[in-house]
Amino acid sequence: MSERIYDRVALIGLGLIASSMFWAIKRNAGIVGEVTGYARSEATRDTARRIGLCDRVCDSAAEAVEGADLVVLCVPVGAMGSVAAEIAPFLKPGCTVSDVGSVKRDVIQSVGPYLPEGVHFIPAHPLAGTEHSGPESGFAELFDNRWCLIVPVENTDPAAVTNLRAFWEALGANVDEMDADHHDLVLAVTSHTPHLIAYTMVGVADDLRRVTDSEVIKYSAAGFRDFTRIAASDPTMWRDVFLTNKDATLEILGRFTEELFALQRAIRTGDGEQLFDYFTRTRAIRRGIIEAGQDTAAPDFGRSHKSGS
Amino acid sequence: MSERIYDRVALIGLGLIASSMFWAIKRNAGIVGEVTGYARSEATRDTARRIGLCDRVCDSAAEAVEGADLVVLCVPVGAMGSVAAEIAPFLKPGCTVSDVGSVKRDVIQSVGPYLPEGVHFIPAHPLAGTEHSGPESGFAELFDNRWCLIVPVENTDPAAVTNLRAFWEALGANVDEMDADHHDLVLAVTSHTPHLIAYTMVGVADDLRRVTDSEVIKYSAAGFRDFTRIAASDPTMWRDVFLTNKDATLEILGRFTEELFALQRAIRTGDGEQLFDYFTRTRAIRRGIIEAGQDTAAPDFGRSHKSGS
Repeated sequence: MSERIYDRVALIGLGLIASSMFWAIKRNAGIVGEVTGYARSEATRDTARRIGLCDRVCDSAAEAVEGADLVVLCVPVGAMGSVAAEIAPFLKPGCTVSDVGSVKRDVIQSVGPYLPEGVHFIPAHPLAGTEHSGPESGFAELFDNRWCLIVPVENTDPAAVTNLRAFWEALGANVDEMDADHHDLVLAVTSHTPHLIAYTMVGVADDLRRVTDSEVIKYSAAGFRDFTRIAASDPTMWRDVFLTNKDATLEILGRFTEELFALQRAIRTGDGEQLFDYFTRTRAIRRGIIEAGQDTAAPDFGRSHKSGS
Repeated sequence: MSERIYDRVALIGLGLIASSMFWAIKRNAGIVGEVTGYARSEATRDTARRIGLCDRVCDSAAEAVEGADLVVLCVPVGAMGSVAAEIAPFLKPGCTVSDVGSVKRDVIQSVGPYLPEGVHFIPAHPLAGTEHSGPESGFAELFDNRWCLIVPVENTDPAAVTNLRAFWEALGANVDEMDADHHDLVLAVTSHTPHLIAYTMVGVADDLRRVTDSEVIKYSAAGFRDFTRIAASDPTMWRDVFLTNKDATLEILGRFTEELFALQRAIRTGDGEQLFDYFTRTRAIRRGIIEAGQDTAAPDFGRSHKSGS
């Protein structure tokens, strides 16, 4: 048995992240006494009960958070505020409220005001996910060797942060701390803008009538195939990300289109040297990611092949 | 032993595609009598000899194509014309010359004029690749269940096409025929434009000094991580693709920026409904690709995890 970190953890919202958290907790039996869960949708609660997701699935958020030492909001960013308002009266004094939202400044502004004195609010964001969503999409290894960014607000209790850090480490993650604005800018670069671009490219392909849908699908090559994977992510979650991380996303999008126009001009004018130099430069950053252990060099574009190269 | 298709095949250029072709041929011992190979770089020829790539590595293209029934040009699109000029005098009468270039109209225009009467020119394009390049990056399974598009020019000998089709099928691919302009447009959508976009996004991240390189790499999440994989592809090959498939790429880029600006405006004005509808629509095309067997639904973004979901 691993050392106990929290006696009771409440997961509010039972999608990919919450379900993966539950299975990762169970892999380390002992770090948490009991895990309660709540989802707004009755169908999701039924599914959770059927597959054994959470020790106890509750029919109200109030019931789920009652007596919990850690409450984790695992709902889309746009729903965080109303959920916080709903649970606030039922929170145990001294408990920690955290979240897993992809945007931090907005969550802090929308959740913070609802929480009573004596409750520790420690926003967090595990950088992990797949294009699948819902209570059945989780798996225990989702956070292994991924980063979880903790974004403490002012005057946070250091002991509460230490506990939350230990919790995420027990779930397999590496933990770092960062301030909210910096988090939102870094994520705009590494996740939010790439998702918007992938959604856009897939939408363009879907629109093209001269290139029929079936051809786009049939001849889907590396490149587009990866984009479609990204563009299959949860629409509600991503709508909320763009609405709540508007400034950073628009800033990065502006830089992106500026660069894209420069490359487009190089294509139009036939400037092969500029293209070659640009493409050479971007290779280096890929090597860095592989060396940092955040991806593999397996030459398969996500597709398994029977034997290695 | 599989049935013999060609007595001698010459691979000109020994990178990812040629080396994978060789290993795929060897997996079907018998379909080809002898495979010769040539690469312009002495270092590449040395590597090929060291790892047993090709039955015989030649020091000139002329020597490699001598007596070959099938000559496959596996060089960047921009080099196809000069290689064709170099080998033309040494081609065996009645042989087939093919290629593996990602652009077809330009290859037809640059290679066709050099080939003597009596030689069958049958352009082709296997839709397969990884971000790795060079003679050591190939593996026999690269073409398994991938498409190879054959783009016959006018008055092509049907028997020669039948043979080339059988050859690619023996290498594991599914074969389709398509005209050159349509090929170039489909590929602009499914491969060329997505690559340019990925290169651009990685370039933007690399430029940002407020978000240090190490952070972009360290916190590289799904989305950006996939882009860096795409943007690690061979710079010479991709420079040539954009220079030679200029019109189709610029057309698709134009549509892409139009759509991107519409979504950017939706973010700026806070139009969540438009974003949600767009993101919902793009999910369907992903399902189509998985059903077509061109990718897996494994929820790992290309990263292997120990057990399933």
